[in-house]
Amino acid sequence: MSQYVFGVDIGGTTVKMGLFESDGNLLDKWEIPTRTENSGEAILPDVAESIKAKMSEKNIAKDDVAGVGIGAPGPIDSEGVVHVAVNLGWGVFNVSETLSGLLDGMLVKAGNDANVAALGEMWKGGGQGYKNMVAVTLGTGVGGGIIINGEILSGAGGAAGEIGHIHVEDDEADFCGCKNQGCLEQYASATGVVRLAKRKLMGDEESILRDGELSAKAVFDAVKAGDKVAIWVAEQFGYYLGKGLSAIAAVVNPEAFVIGGGVSKAGEVLFEYIKPYYKKYVFHASRDVEFKLATLGNDAGIYGAAKMVLD
Amino acid sequence: MSQYVFGVDIGGTTVKMGLFESDGNLLDKWEIPTRTENSGEAILPDVAESIKAKMSEKNIAKDDVAGVGIGAPGPIDSEGVVHVAVNLGWGVFNVSETLSGLLDGMLVKAGNDANVAALGEMWKGGGQGYKNMVAVTLGTGVGGGIIINGEILSGAGGAAGEIGHIHVEDDEADFCGCKNQGCLEQYASATGVVRLAKRKLMGDEESILRDGELSAKAVFDAVKAGDKVAIWVAEQFGYYLGKGLSAIAAVVNPEAFVIGGGVSKAGEVLFEYIKPYYKKYVFHASRDVEFKLATLGNDAGIYGAAKMVLD
Repeated sequence: MSQYVFGVDIGGTTVKMGLFESDGNLLDKWEIPTRTENSGEAILPDVAESIKAKMSEKNIAKDDVAGVGIGAPGPIDSEGVVHVAVNLGWGVFNVSETLSGLLDGMLVKAGNDANVAALGEMWKGGGQGYKNMVAVTLGTGVGGGIIINGEILSGAGGAAGEIGHIHVEDDEADFCGCKNQGCLEQYASATGVVRLAKRKLMGDEESILRDGELSAKAVFDAVKAGDKVAIWVAEQFGYYLGKGLSAIAAVVNPEAFVIGGGVSKAGEVLFEYIKPYYKKYVFHASRDVEFKLATLGNDAGIYGAAKMVLD
Repeated sequence: MSQYVFGVDIGGTTVKMGLFESDGNLLDKWEIPTRTENSGEAILPDVAESIKAKMSEKNIAKDDVAGVGIGAPGPIDSEGVVHVAVNLGWGVFNVSETLSGLLDGMLVKAGNDANVAALGEMWKGGGQGYKNMVAVTLGTGVGGGIIINGEILSGAGGAAGEIGHIHVEDDEADFCGCKNQGCLEQYASATGVVRLAKRKLMGDEESILRDGELSAKAVFDAVKAGDKVAIWVAEQFGYYLGKGLSAIAAVVNPEAFVIGGGVSKAGEVLFEYIKPYYKKYVFHASRDVEFKLATLGNDAGIYGAAKMVLD
């Protein structure tokens, strides 16, 4: 069996890369810039070059590498075909085949970054021990990764797990980035939490949120301090997220939700606001689903990418 | 390769059974009563006896049978364990192993009836040509069966596809059979459509629905006749179902929805009411999902059960 595997997580500004042993031990990690100019044509050649350089540096032969896993921010189907990744400038092409060609035929497996990160959390993070789980990333947006029987659910066009765009509110004047109105992402992302707080602060209630910079972290810190405006925001956040997660549970009946992303740094206090609404709306067969915090942070993507190759 | 396979669909009052050739040709179908007394202990022995009788009648040897597939109304996980099937009186036990034991070790595969029916529609019904699809059964309740890469999605506890219990309305006074309020099933099932019509008819608007018996069929017939009350009901039905299906699409990104059950006898007119709301609420990557009518009717279960064995 090959000893090594590379995990690659392409972001809009940097590419995170990791060299792993096949048991999941992370030997080395590093980053290179993501060059998105000219339709992102340099991204995969840069990745290939960096992998080759690392192999040379560490005296690793091609036969000792099981392969390269790669996650990217866009819909990528189970064949490795990306269907437009706006942030990278990519159109439609086969990521796995292209990178494999640049690496002398090495095995390459590609997936959507949120889905790949979910696999990482299942393997070495907050989702260890679960084979059916949903990773929920509460960052700038709300992303999701769905794991069924230990494998990523990609969906027909690679757009499974787009849970930030579940419609949860009819009465919403603002538009989501996707151009719909009332998406879960508008309430449960870091941006959404700030938006809700700003709305509430347009009233004249006293709040420590009026001092200092408004952020999701500031909101949940204020919750812990008993601030009434912050608690109102947390209730709204919990209502929408609890309702959204209950819909997901009705569809895939997971064992666990693993919550990550910037907002999750608030910690288990989040669960106090999510769970009551989740339990109110969910079908009884999924009532006892576990709620866990993600633990790998920004490394979830490289772990999951490596795991894809090892499966 | 074995020539024959049995498909069994256990319902609350009758067990439907089919004898198939391995290419899916249905040679014979028949029914036996479902004996639910004494915790349904006679159901599987009755099924086994009926299969043996049919083999004897047709001079089929055990070696010529690939196996028996069985669907039942309750959560059944991927190992074949049922987790309480209220309508049959069943508690928790392994359906596959039990029936196999009664059939001298014959291969048996078991699944939830709605999921199994979905597989049937994919194989020989309205979902032919799709490997990622969601079957939606609009009957007394709203059931769902989710097919991913040609296989049933069971969920951790066998309760995946319980789409009738997606929460779609906060402002609902009536309770769903599951004891929640505002479940999709309360608006999009045959029962739900009648409930909506009754509500609207409490007003004094003229309607041909005031004559004759109220049923989902009567409502959609009245829609075709331009009845305003019926059209209001159809809009409500389409709003809730479109919203619910958009949530499902955000989670699993299917190629097609295949709509069956009693309400679907209204035909493609349903789609005129579902699609506008679906398209309004769905994430753009799933906007062009196909809507199809189921074609196998009550036989979907036996087809799907047979297909489980052949996979």
